[in-house]
Amino acid sequence: MSTDAPAPRRRRGRPSREDAGEGPGARERILAAARGEFAERGYDKASIRAIARRADVDPALVHHYFGPKEQVFEAALEVDFAPAMELPEVIFGGASTGGGGGAGSGVDEGAGERLTRYMLGVWESALTREPLLAVVRSAVNNEAAAAIFRRVVVRNVLRRVTPRLAGPDAELRAELAVAQLVGVAMLRYVVKVEPLASAGVEEIVARVAPVVQRHLAGA
Amino acid sequence: MSTDAPAPRRRRGRPSREDAGEGPGARERILAAARGEFAERGYDKASIRAIARRADVDPALVHHYFGPKEQVFEAALEVDFAPAMELPEVIFGGASTGGGGGAGSGVDEGAGERLTRYMLGVWESALTREPLLAVVRSAVNNEAAAAIFRRVVVRNVLRRVTPRLAGPDAELRAELAVAQLVGVAMLRYVVKVEPLASAGVEEIVARVAPVVQRHLAGA
Repeated sequence: MSTDAPAPRRRRGRPSREDAGEGPGARERILAAARGEFAERGYDKASIRAIARRADVDPALVHHYFGPKEQVFEAALEVDFAPAMELPEVIFGGASTGGGGGAGSGVDEGAGERLTRYMLGVWESALTREPLLAVVRSAVNNEAAAAIFRRVVVRNVLRRVTPRLAGPDAELRAELAVAQLVGVAMLRYVVKVEPLASAGVEEIVARVAPVVQRHLAGA
Repeated sequence: MSTDAPAPRRRRGRPSREDAGEGPGARERILAAARGEFAERGYDKASIRAIARRADVDPALVHHYFGPKEQVFEAALEVDFAPAMELPEVIFGGASTGGGGGAGSGVDEGAGERLTRYMLGVWESALTREPLLAVVRSAVNNEAAAAIFRRVVVRNVLRRVTPRLAGPDAELRAELAVAQLVGVAMLRYVVKVEPLASAGVEEIVARVAPVVQRHLAGA
């Protein structure tokens, strides 16, 4: 029974890893805290200090794992934006493996519909919609957040999609396809204008998929 | 020389109209102050008190002219959104007067291009872009602001456009046309993703106008 053993002496200099809150899962805890903080308060108002408090760690540990606020945001965004990582498979991974088809356009004739359905699916579920909305809010409110968002989109989506599209202006066309879907999301889920806000998914797919296909395949 | 005449006694009860800052142009001054306040601080953080301070009037006068904050925002939005009031003429006022044409679709074959050029023009100029961006920010950040935005769009644009479009789902189609343009604006002017952000207007018109036309005219 060493109840009167001397307490460990740790108050010199930087906090020990244990005092700092490090331990199993500290990195994941910080990341979850960062996502919550950015979602609730937006990029502008979020702070490393508040993230550390939520994760119950020392602010220095947040910096140790992720760097400054911009990089914490980028790491959080990568998680919130995870559904977008699947876009290349959604676009190119049609029924027929091996890609191709569709008159040398690089996409088969079902790509526009798959992409439209996938994006609507992500926005229809509150679980995936809310983090996305938080990202949109931060990007609209803050130039630095917009730049990080842009970098993540380019790295994780555009760079993996556009080289596989055939025809001229493939990058521009991919972005215009996404623009149609982003606009639908803004009007349907953010502004909530009728009848778009209450239209059935099939109704929207019927009108939007051909347009998305047109952009992807080239006119 | 009545320098020692008694000062006017006005401190009883409500401030006089003059003390409140009323006078020629007070309403316009308040409206300009409101637009500035909402643009700079967003719907959430803007306050009647701050608007009154900017306009150099009594807060009661702001309420007298416009009502509560939601209604001040709506009045400011109507001004910032003025370019959108012209959309019906842009869509239907083509070269050939009398409307019609285009196989009974309600729009002539140039409508999609005119609408695309007009929207890009509004966003290309900082003078018209900045107020619009401020509105988008407020709508994205705040549900009440989004509801007011929606009401203004429906009243001033959709209700004047969709009854003149032929074919089924005219309202939905009008919104999908706008969605394509809203998405382009978001990616080009807010997220600034390349190559869309630096593409020439003609390049964008060439790819987007046919899609907008398709929505307006019905497939």
